[in-house]
Amino acid sequence: MSSHSGYRGKSLSFLQKNNLQVGDIVSVATDVDYSGMIMPRYEYSDDEHVVLKLKSGYNIGLEVDKIKKIKIESTVELKKETIQQPQTNPKLSKLLLVSTGGTIASKVDYRTGGVTPALTAAELNATVPELAKIANIDSEVLFSEYSENLLPEHWKKIAEKINSCLNSEYKGIIVAHGTDTMQYTAAALSFALVNIPIPVALVGSQRSSDRPSSDAALNLISAAKFLVECDTTGIYVVMHNTTSDDEVACHWGTRVRKNHTSKRNAFQTIGGSPAFIIKNDKIIKNQQFNYVRKREYVPKINFDTRVALVKYYPGLDSNIINYIIEAGYKAIIFEGTGLGHIGKTMYDNVAKAKKKGLFMGMTSQCIDGMVRMTVYESGRDLLNFGIIPLADMIPETALVKAMWALGNSKNVQEMETLMKENIASEFSD
Amino acid sequence: MSSHSGYRGKSLSFLQKNNLQVGDIVSVATDVDYSGMIMPRYEYSDDEHVVLKLKSGYNIGLEVDKIKKIKIESTVELKKETIQQPQTNPKLSKLLLVSTGGTIASKVDYRTGGVTPALTAAELNATVPELAKIANIDSEVLFSEYSENLLPEHWKKIAEKINSCLNSEYKGIIVAHGTDTMQYTAAALSFALVNIPIPVALVGSQRSSDRPSSDAALNLISAAKFLVECDTTGIYVVMHNTTSDDEVACHWGTRVRKNHTSKRNAFQTIGGSPAFIIKNDKIIKNQQFNYVRKREYVPKINFDTRVALVKYYPGLDSNIINYIIEAGYKAIIFEGTGLGHIGKTMYDNVAKAKKKGLFMGMTSQCIDGMVRMTVYESGRDLLNFGIIPLADMIPETALVKAMWALGNSKNVQEMETLMKENIASEFSD
Repeated sequence: MSSHSGYRGKSLSFLQKNNLQVGDIVSVATDVDYSGMIMPRYEYSDDEHVVLKLKSGYNIGLEVDKIKKIKIESTVELKKETIQQPQTNPKLSKLLLVSTGGTIASKVDYRTGGVTPALTAAELNATVPELAKIANIDSEVLFSEYSENLLPEHWKKIAEKINSCLNSEYKGIIVAHGTDTMQYTAAALSFALVNIPIPVALVGSQRSSDRPSSDAALNLISAAKFLVECDTTGIYVVMHNTTSDDEVACHWGTRVRKNHTSKRNAFQTIGGSPAFIIKNDKIIKNQQFNYVRKREYVPKINFDTRVALVKYYPGLDSNIINYIIEAGYKAIIFEGTGLGHIGKTMYDNVAKAKKKGLFMGMTSQCIDGMVRMTVYESGRDLLNFGIIPLADMIPETALVKAMWALGNSKNVQEMETLMKENIASEFSD
Repeated sequence: MSSHSGYRGKSLSFLQKNNLQVGDIVSVATDVDYSGMIMPRYEYSDDEHVVLKLKSGYNIGLEVDKIKKIKIESTVELKKETIQQPQTNPKLSKLLLVSTGGTIASKVDYRTGGVTPALTAAELNATVPELAKIANIDSEVLFSEYSENLLPEHWKKIAEKINSCLNSEYKGIIVAHGTDTMQYTAAALSFALVNIPIPVALVGSQRSSDRPSSDAALNLISAAKFLVECDTTGIYVVMHNTTSDDEVACHWGTRVRKNHTSKRNAFQTIGGSPAFIIKNDKIIKNQQFNYVRKREYVPKINFDTRVALVKYYPGLDSNIINYIIEAGYKAIIFEGTGLGHIGKTMYDNVAKAKKKGLFMGMTSQCIDGMVRMTVYESGRDLLNFGIIPLADMIPETALVKAMWALGNSKNVQEMETLMKENIASEFSD
């Protein structure tokens, strides 16, 4: 990354003219005076501003044209970090940590603006020394993406990576992952690797590790402890259970949803309690419900994205169904209203989609609760059109399941059979 | 409705041959013996089955071909109900009850299968005698639709009806409404009738009034009490606050969401507490937040449905944006991930939509919490594309607001100004 990372046009000329680069500490005179560090900019930024990180920690964009004077105060030296490889403790179990990116795996380098995956085993031990007391952790960087940029092809790569490690001596696998689409990946792995013989924990953080309120360390420590001590299998999301630092929840991968944009306990198990809760160093199993179903492990690691999620709302133009048919989609997951309804204006095109052989499944935008399509006339009409009620499956989980079922079926009939089967405790029965 | 309501083809012939009609009590011999009442069927039903309501209350479909013997036991007589008009009490306030349909306004007639709006004032008094002690209630049937079939044109009619009654002596207005899309209508009325000088309560029920667990009566009584006693204005959703019959919440119309398919307390205020809670006959005001903003009442009762709601998910084909542009939409409300993100694969077409002059706003599929697009690179990229962050507006409320803002603006610029303005406490500021 260049020393003018992200600057271009007018703002780049300004920096070059003043012999400045990213990382320099400067004092600036505009209408108000500021001092701070020149920050990098991003690919799609304008070329009118220079961004400073002030001592308060806030960033401010200064319009180049309004800068009367700028003076360099000092330059931040690039420190060469030497990292100590942790000692292997032969008494401890082995875990693998696979990093995919996201806040938890990021270290912001203010000198270059580069976001680097920081999770080598050594760096983990340096920042989270508790980990080395729990397990011997190998680590591997699979990719380094914020999770809003992860696609079903990434789900496939993560699943293949995990599957390839099952003959190693790992007692469990941690997947460091951005929180934005963590629930989608958790569902994808739950279906692709159903009946996996070891536990896998997806771990993220809602606040980056340079912030005092970061949840990264506790989530990682808890995940490691969970994988080593808890005699279970399957795919879990391991994140804060409360707003304080005293409780971590292990959510079953097909039942979890991110329900808040910023809270550390944003993730919740929908329609039930988390599979496990870690509190005061104890791991407490949910006694009401056993999410794990023991069958033979036969990984099916394919996803077909020709599935559309259609959220119904008053005024939705039913032509969207025509578009979906014409674009070659094979399935529609509806996010209906209430017990699983869509308005009458959709009926003709829904009938057309059925005639064209598309799979159609119904979930509810209420998110929690059972779809029940026999209660009202609308639901019964939709059942007669061939829409399949998907019980209490979370809409996002139903979408992922449909991509997985389509990807591992020879035709839509086979897909429908998979959709009705409870594969990974994705619905209540 | 005919006495063979909904039956056709094979099942109709069967009923006619046996001289049977809907409402008859029969005993039937198949592999198992049943007795029950012949129920009506619906327009889109198959012609292979006769449906019985058993004494247990459950319905069962019997395949005509498998019926060995069927015998009539008795016929349910159609009772002519005489309803007593309630006495007007000059000491009480006047309320108007406008019925739009939904479970609360339905009476299932097992004889004909017809679902009829039951909410004449007299019938209300017969079933909910407490109401006559609270207010003198006029009632009017506006339409009789389950709310999944209500459209923005219905929002307009409801708003116009309410607006036309403001010069009457009504202290408040109850709108009986299906729960499926109640939150959309509540938001629509909140924008269209912002600063309305009286309170309006949308009331529904999650369980029909023929069930012992029905919430219809308590919700109606509470709404009437709220409108008469509570010195406030604005649009509210009045529904159970707990699973028991002791607490009712009055949710502010732009902040409420149906979060469970079947629970009586399905409705919740997102990101805060309800505006009022009615408990032990007392009305308790939320002290943390005053939702009402007092300005001049200038109704703007138009909606333009050329707004698309796009929920982002991994694997979403960005061509959906091209479809939206080509279909002539004027605005897109994104349900992004986390703090307000969509994946990089969408960027090119988002830029195209901006170039074509579409309004684009960002909400989060987390539902709760603030969209904050300055925190991560993805968010900053999207801001640079001209996507407007919509704070903590609920996605569905943002969609309705966009339809309203577009419907009452001369162009997209004017619409954008409205979208950024806090009109009806739809976001926190």
